[in-house]
Amino acid sequence: MKEKILEYLNKGHDYLSGDQISSHLGISRQALWKHIQDLKDAGYDIVAVPHLGYRLESKPDRIFAFEVARGLNTKFIGKKIYYFDYLASTMDLAMQLGMRGSAGGTLVLAESQTKGRGRLGRSWFSPKYKGIYLSLILRPEILPQASPILTLLSAVSICEAIKTITALEPQIKWPNDVLIHNKKVAGILTEMNAEADKVNFVAIGIGLNVNNDKKSLIAQATSLKEQAGAQVARVLLLQELLRRIENNYFLLEDKGARAIIEKWRSLSLTLGRHVKVYYQHKHIEGSAVDIDEDGTLLIRKPSGLIQKVSSGDVVHFR
Amino acid sequence: MKEKILEYLNKGHDYLSGDQISSHLGISRQALWKHIQDLKDAGYDIVAVPHLGYRLESKPDRIFAFEVARGLNTKFIGKKIYYFDYLASTMDLAMQLGMRGSAGGTLVLAESQTKGRGRLGRSWFSPKYKGIYLSLILRPEILPQASPILTLLSAVSICEAIKTITALEPQIKWPNDVLIHNKKVAGILTEMNAEADKVNFVAIGIGLNVNNDKKSLIAQATSLKEQAGAQVARVLLLQELLRRIENNYFLLEDKGARAIIEKWRSLSLTLGRHVKVYYQHKHIEGSAVDIDEDGTLLIRKPSGLIQKVSSGDVVHFR
Repeated sequence: MKEKILEYLNKGHDYLSGDQISSHLGISRQALWKHIQDLKDAGYDIVAVPHLGYRLESKPDRIFAFEVARGLNTKFIGKKIYYFDYLASTMDLAMQLGMRGSAGGTLVLAESQTKGRGRLGRSWFSPKYKGIYLSLILRPEILPQASPILTLLSAVSICEAIKTITALEPQIKWPNDVLIHNKKVAGILTEMNAEADKVNFVAIGIGLNVNNDKKSLIAQATSLKEQAGAQVARVLLLQELLRRIENNYFLLEDKGARAIIEKWRSLSLTLGRHVKVYYQHKHIEGSAVDIDEDGTLLIRKPSGLIQKVSSGDVVHFR
Repeated sequence: MKEKILEYLNKGHDYLSGDQISSHLGISRQALWKHIQDLKDAGYDIVAVPHLGYRLESKPDRIFAFEVARGLNTKFIGKKIYYFDYLASTMDLAMQLGMRGSAGGTLVLAESQTKGRGRLGRSWFSPKYKGIYLSLILRPEILPQASPILTLLSAVSICEAIKTITALEPQIKWPNDVLIHNKKVAGILTEMNAEADKVNFVAIGIGLNVNNDKKSLIAQATSLKEQAGAQVARVLLLQELLRRIENNYFLLEDKGARAIIEKWRSLSLTLGRHVKVYYQHKHIEGSAVDIDEDGTLLIRKPSGLIQKVSSGDVVHFR
């Protein structure tokens, strides 16, 4: 109902009388008043002038579930959204929800995380109202070893969404860092619950620095605000991101991993570079020549031999 | 304390006076009486004769945590045991515990399961007090694609434990069915929680038909009781199984997958046979020539080509 009230208030910029709104939505004046109070508590600046009625002056900078759902226009992603002002970790909740059978497309959003997680037990700094911190449950019919394609798909989707909304040109550092001007703006953590021959579900975690101020970021990190020089509307960006993920997911189902890999290649900052990759207490240096359909990086060593690395941390050389 | 009381009662076959027991254990007569009542409620037949004292006549057929822990003598497996009279699924709980950070070696036992799970969403019939239904949390430092070795390791351990306790000679049908005289006596389900390049934890689920009566079993299944012609002590079998798993786990860490594969080969019913393997809506027929270190089955097709199958359901031909 709150969504409908906002929808209605959004339409005109003039005052709408309480009678008009409540009769249009088929609720009592009393119920309307209660909803308006709740919306005001949530940060919506709704002014009420006697004899004139209500007017929506401004919206809070929040990624409320109903704001994200409105006009999202996806087939299955975000049909169910869990929203929290803060959460220990969206991943923890998503993995729990997955085990309880939540549908593919279920989305967990938090305005901040106290224990935001990154790859390999690292943390993700998640200051309140500044970023997009989400975990998305997917239930692809793939084998566990094929799961890295979902991380590549997510990286591609993040780049596409950022480019559409901000006109910035992000690139991907293998396997899953999204960079703008060589600084990290987003990270992806993909976790799965799987048997040897069946992925039960996957949770894709995305942390995206949107409106973080420069001074709150470490040297290797950046935010869209810093790069674009202006505040970015998180709801619009998030919606675009969800649509891109869904489109790319359908593309994967339709055309296979190759179609995702092609997009990934065109966005890659790593391919063609001289790199050093740290993985499992080892490292390897050479030229990053390509990635496989399973996301494996192919490195040509000085000896000419090609070595495959399935994951690790990359350092790019000039 | 209950464990200590039982330990003490177990020692002699004569009556032990309440004074003797309580002073030995440093508890009050009143506390002792309460513990004895609890033990009787749990099915321990403890007779109390005035002026003589207590005597343990018989134990219930239960796999109580403290019975399993007593004399288990493992380094890390079963150091923490969760025991339930019934549970929906030991796997569900183990996966939950894993996510909450339970240590490797943590064991979940149930006397019965209402929704016992098998591979690929199949169910495991878990009648009360008849079988061993367990899930074991392990935290190996391996990549997700290496996880099938843990299933092979479990199958080997089950065979070894059965052989030690019953002198029966079980064999393994690839990948993870334990058979006696071509009938299934145990199944294994391995689930993992993982990132692309890190297994967070694995839960190994084992369902073992121990004292099931022939008439309660489907045609392709059997129990140790049916095969051995006598009731099998579940606690002893379970303890042996846990020790075998731990030994083989250390062997894997020490000598690598090859050492486990070697044992597996010698127990395999599949290798050298003409088989048909059903996998992911496909099937392949040929001669099962070997398995890889990652558990992949190698099948020589009539054309002479070798094909690898990472998992599926095998039909053996004569």
